[in-house]
Amino acid sequence: MSATKLDGVATAAAIRAELAPQIAAYTARKGRAPALHIVLVGDDPGSQVYVRNKQRTGEQTGLTVVVHRRPATATREEVLSLVAGLNADDRCDGILVQSPLPHALGKTAEQQVFDTINPAKDVDCFHPENVGRLVQGRQVLAPCTPSGVIELLVRQQIPIAGRRAVVVGRSDIVGKPMALLLLQRDATVTVCHSKTEDLAARCREADILVAAIGRPAFITAAFVKPGAVVVDVGINPVKSHDHAVQIFGADSPRVAAFDAKGNGIVGDVHPEVAGIASALSPVPGGVGPLTIAMLLKNTLTAAMAR
Amino acid sequence: MSATKLDGVATAAAIRAELAPQIAAYTARKGRAPALHIVLVGDDPGSQVYVRNKQRTGEQTGLTVVVHRRPATATREEVLSLVAGLNADDRCDGILVQSPLPHALGKTAEQQVFDTINPAKDVDCFHPENVGRLVQGRQVLAPCTPSGVIELLVRQQIPIAGRRAVVVGRSDIVGKPMALLLLQRDATVTVCHSKTEDLAARCREADILVAAIGRPAFITAAFVKPGAVVVDVGINPVKSHDHAVQIFGADSPRVAAFDAKGNGIVGDVHPEVAGIASALSPVPGGVGPLTIAMLLKNTLTAAMAR
Repeated sequence: MSATKLDGVATAAAIRAELAPQIAAYTARKGRAPALHIVLVGDDPGSQVYVRNKQRTGEQTGLTVVVHRRPATATREEVLSLVAGLNADDRCDGILVQSPLPHALGKTAEQQVFDTINPAKDVDCFHPENVGRLVQGRQVLAPCTPSGVIELLVRQQIPIAGRRAVVVGRSDIVGKPMALLLLQRDATVTVCHSKTEDLAARCREADILVAAIGRPAFITAAFVKPGAVVVDVGINPVKSHDHAVQIFGADSPRVAAFDAKGNGIVGDVHPEVAGIASALSPVPGGVGPLTIAMLLKNTLTAAMAR
Repeated sequence: MSATKLDGVATAAAIRAELAPQIAAYTARKGRAPALHIVLVGDDPGSQVYVRNKQRTGEQTGLTVVVHRRPATATREEVLSLVAGLNADDRCDGILVQSPLPHALGKTAEQQVFDTINPAKDVDCFHPENVGRLVQGRQVLAPCTPSGVIELLVRQQIPIAGRRAVVVGRSDIVGKPMALLLLQRDATVTVCHSKTEDLAARCREADILVAAIGRPAFITAAFVKPGAVVVDVGINPVKSHDHAVQIFGADSPRVAAFDAKGNGIVGDVHPEVAGIASALSPVPGGVGPLTIAMLLKNTLTAAMAR
C-alpha cells in the first residue's frame, strides 16, 4: 500500500488560479492591485528565501508586494514605527512581519510588533483580536498554514466532519489554530504535545493526523492507524549525509540530492508512513506552497473587506 | 464506590476569603473599592436571579457593584451607548453585560455589545482580543466558568498535566475556553460535540471529563471511565415530577424537593456517575458558585491592571 500524495504544489496552483482573476477584477475596479507589505528585519537566510518566495508568488498572481528591509541593528521603535506607518497607509492592504525578528530586539519584540498591526491588515492572523475571532468562528482572516491544511483536505474531498483529528503540537502559529479550524469543520479534535503520555497511541486514534512539532521524521508508522490521512507541517533541515541515510535509506534519491546540494529538508513525518497512511502530504511540496497561497488569499480578502 | 464531591461552594468560599483582604487593601490604597458594573436589559427571570447573586456576593466580598437596568424595549444604540459610557468612566473597573439580551435587539446585538466593551474591563472575557490572548497563553482576564473549573481541580489537587481531558461541548463561553485552559495546564485535550461519532467511547477515554452541553443527565455511567474525574458544568431545569423521578429515582430527596418547590435544576451528568467516577462536581453547588467567585477575582484583577 502506498498513500495518495496530498499534492500541495498542485493545490496551491489551483488556489492561485482562482485568485488571479479575482485580484485582476479588484485591480480593474480600484485602479490598483491589492498590496501586501512585508517587513523583513535582519539577514536570517531562511527568512530571505521565504520573503523572496512570497514576493515572487504574490506578484505572479497579480498583487503588489512591497518588501521593507531593515538591518539587524534596527531598533524596536523603528520597527514599530514602520508598522504604524503601514497601518495608516491607505494603499497598504496586508502587513506581514517576517518571523523571526533578530534576537537583539528582545524577547517580547515579536509579540509587541504583531500586536501593533491593524487587525484588518493582519494577513498572518497573529493579532489576538483575529485569533479570538477565529475561536468564535467569525474570522475574516485565517492563519495561513492551518487554513492551507484545510484547503488541502477539502479539495482532496477528505471528510472532516465527525472524524477524529489529532494535532501534534500546540504552537500559536500552527497547532492551536489548526485545532480550532478542524473543530469548525466538525471534527472531534485532540491536541497532543510534549507532555502527552503515550503519544504514539494517541496519534493512532486519528483519522486525520496533523504533525506540527518540528522534529525530523519523528512520526513513524507506529504513530499511524492504517488508512489514516496524515498531514506533515514540519520543515526541518537534514543535518548530514548520515542523517539523510538514517531517514530516507541509503538508496534513496533524496540522499543523493542531499549529497549534491549539501542541504535538504524533511518533515515531521517519517517516509515509512507512506506505507500505512491512506494519504500523506509530502515535504517539500505539501503544506509549504499552501501557506503562501493562503497569504495571497488573505491579502485579497483584507483588501476587499476594508 | 462513591465519588468524592468536588465542592464548589467551599472552594468558592475559599477563593472569596482570599480575595477579600486583597480587595480591602486595594480599597484602602485607592480610596475606593474595585467597581463591577452590570448591565441588565429586560426581565428574563433567570438573569434577574444571576445578577442578584453577583451583586450580593460581590458586595459581601468588598466590591462596589452597580447594576444598570434597562427595559426590554431598550434599543441597541442605548445599550451600546451605556457600555461606551462605562468604558470611559474611570471609576468603572469591570463591565458585565448579562446574557441573554432580549431577542428584540436582534441576533447580532450580543456580540456587537461584547465587542464594544473595553478589553481591559471585560471581566467575562468575551471580547475577541481577550479570547485571542487566552489562546496565546497571555490572558490577564480569563473566562469565569472555565477558570472556575480549573480552580476546582487544582485546589482538590487533581493532576491535570499529561492527563487526558475530554470537554463535551464547544461553546464560546465554556467548551472552547475550557479546552484552552486545560491545554495550558498541559492536559492532552479532546473536544467533543454534537457531530462526534461514538461520543460515549470518546468520553470514556477521559481522565478528566468536563460536561458542558446543556442536556439534563445526559452523561450516564456509560460515558465514564471508572475512576475518572467528572466536572458538571450543565445547569438545566427539571421539567416535571416525572422528569425528576426519571433522573433521581422515585425515592430521592431531590424528587421531594422538586415537588415542594415546583422547580429544580440538574446538571449534564446523571447522578449514577457518582458510583463510577473518583470525583464529581454536584449541581447545584459545583461549578456555579465558582463562576461568580472568578468574576469577582477578574474585577479585582482588572482594577489592579488598569
